Amino acid sequence: MRTFFVRDTSNITWLTAFDDVFDDESAHALLVTPHDAVLHTDSRYSEAARAAAVAEGVIAVDDTRIAHAAFVANAFAARHAQQPAAEADAVVLGIEDSMTLAGYRALEDAFADAPARPRLRETSDFILDLRAVKDSNEIARMKAAQAITDAAFAHIIEYMRPGMTERAVQIELEDFMLRHGAEGLAFSSIVATGANGASPHAIPGQTVLEAGQCVVLDFGVRAHGYCSDMTRTVFLGDPSPRLRAAYEAIRSANEQVEAALRPGVTGKAMHELAEQVLAEHGFAGKMGHGLGHGVGIDIHEQPVLSPRNENPLVTGNVVTVEPGVYLAGEFGMRLEDCGVLTSDGFEVFTQSTHDLVIL
Amino acid sequence: MRTFFVRDTSNITWLTAFDDVFDDESAHALLVTPHDAVLHTDSRYSEAARAAAVAEGVIAVDDTRIAHAAFVANAFAARHAQQPAAEADAVVLGIEDSMTLAGYRALEDAFADAPARPRLRETSDFILDLRAVKDSNEIARMKAAQAITDAAFAHIIEYMRPGMTERAVQIELEDFMLRHGAEGLAFSSIVATGANGASPHAIPGQTVLEAGQCVVLDFGVRAHGYCSDMTRTVFLGDPSPRLRAAYEAIRSANEQVEAALRPGVTGKAMHELAEQVLAEHGFAGKMGHGLGHGVGIDIHEQPVLSPRNENPLVTGNVVTVEPGVYLAGEFGMRLEDCGVLTSDGFEVFTQSTHDLVIL
Repeated sequence: MRTFFVRDTSNITWLTAFDDVFDDESAHALLVTPHDAVLHTDSRYSEAARAAAVAEGVIAVDDTRIAHAAFVANAFAARHAQQPAAEADAVVLGIEDSMTLAGYRALEDAFADAPARPRLRETSDFILDLRAVKDSNEIARMKAAQAITDAAFAHIIEYMRPGMTERAVQIELEDFMLRHGAEGLAFSSIVATGANGASPHAIPGQTVLEAGQCVVLDFGVRAHGYCSDMTRTVFLGDPSPRLRAAYEAIRSANEQVEAALRPGVTGKAMHELAEQVLAEHGFAGKMGHGLGHGVGIDIHEQPVLSPRNENPLVTGNVVTVEPGVYLAGEFGMRLEDCGVLTSDGFEVFTQSTHDLVIL
Repeated sequence: MRTFFVRDTSNITWLTAFDDVFDDESAHALLVTPHDAVLHTDSRYSEAARAAAVAEGVIAVDDTRIAHAAFVANAFAARHAQQPAAEADAVVLGIEDSMTLAGYRALEDAFADAPARPRLRETSDFILDLRAVKDSNEIARMKAAQAITDAAFAHIIEYMRPGMTERAVQIELEDFMLRHGAEGLAFSSIVATGANGASPHAIPGQTVLEAGQCVVLDFGVRAHGYCSDMTRTVFLGDPSPRLRAAYEAIRSANEQVEAALRPGVTGKAMHELAEQVLAEHGFAGKMGHGLGHGVGIDIHEQPVLSPRNENPLVTGNVVTVEPGVYLAGEFGMRLEDCGVLTSDGFEVFTQSTHDLVIL
């Protein structure tokens, strides 16, 4: 497959390597052929896109006021005008199955009327697989994003104290990141205390931080187009033996996985290692989610560290390692780092401590 | 069409009326039948969803660990087990064409193996059209969101001054909204000065505010699940005659449209009225975008005020009115309110002044 129609904005961002052009609107389409690449965008973005295209060289920018589907049909026809129809029909045009059904129907309609028609091949991870291996430029950006995130952790543990609401801590945490170089948030931060921590997807609310509890902080930024992601669990006052035991379990799971990570191991094996360590500490079956996921332009990328991934990891994969223990009605905790697989191991981006943090 | 499979999270939020359950992950599916409604979600959300379902009464919650497509095929089969196959086949199952192509293929596969198979009907706006008419509860939420946004405007015009970057103003503006009751932002705020203002989609950057220029501020919050949206253009020092003339044009266009809005007029007519007023002030063809859009759970909803909408507006439509003038390389400005069509006119939510604001 050498010709590809791309609608996912993160895929377009990665393929073009344009900085500071795209936002979160799905307003763009990219046609990649063996000979050229054309970005179809609208007038709101064309000035920035043209400037970026000059820097990146090989990409043309088109902002004709037609639908993306009509654009690709026209562009395809122009490239195959000299070919017999049968040869054009033999060309495969890759498309992403993350596109909307409406977008797919529009593509079918546009090609129905076109002089040259490719065969459409639906792909689910063609570009995502390419994005799963980061180069040194991407890794530098992710380390910069993580440095802001680590600084925010140092700030927030000085700031937070019993009596504050989760939401107040979240607002301060996010404001600090935005005032210290973040372009935006990688995701809406989690601040969860007490039993709320047992819900891995807790929305920070009016629950007040109380002495004796732990607080889960899961947060990250976007910087230079790339995400960071970390979780730390901190304690308000001296933790009970049960809280200490759970923390020791997740810390041990985190560190044993990070020591074992290297090219050739599978995501499944790493997940199982974490589950095994948690079980050895008396918390069998209390994680309830996958051990980790890829990170990059998007907060969730390939590869995943979960039972579903039996493929060997490779050098350049950037993944999170985030074992957790969740006891419904009681508490939850998680310890998450992010790092890159090197030729012989795992380089952790996250610099914040694994030691017990008692406020 | 009486049976509907819903994947869009905003549509699910509106149909269930669940508060504080859904975030921005597309992790849910809702099956609505003539007799019941079942939300299929995962364990991360099920506790909150069950609590909300009790309050709303008619909605069941299912968090079986199967794919959404398998869930709907099973649920459909269970409801049509007693029917002859031919009758089940005659049932139409509405789906949204905003769903992903992958999701659609999964649905085809799940029904291919199922004992009862409906006909799938792809819809583009069935639920969006229902959402376009707001009830009093929704309007109250949107007024509360707007009150936070107006308060932020009052704050930021005290705070901002020449020498600050656009980005610094954006961060302060957003932090204020989040500390004063916003659950989140309706969209990433725009702060654009000088020639940057001529780009309606400017990303705030390191450009410094300078005396003699105007600054476009376009921002809004989410509160109780609903969005606000406003734009004001303010002046750093006494504006030039040309800036004053442009501001007078957008103010006049804004106010003439707001006086004309009532049930029965079309979005197209309102857009054309604004274009006409701008032209009378010497700014013909300088708007370049639609006059306004619906607002609700999403920041962009139905109906739109643009040449594309020839349908009459109705009581309960909530729309923005945002005429703008953009002069490339020079400046841009926009004046945006949001309000609701009442039985005999238009009630504006936005309380901030239309008068010249000179800092």
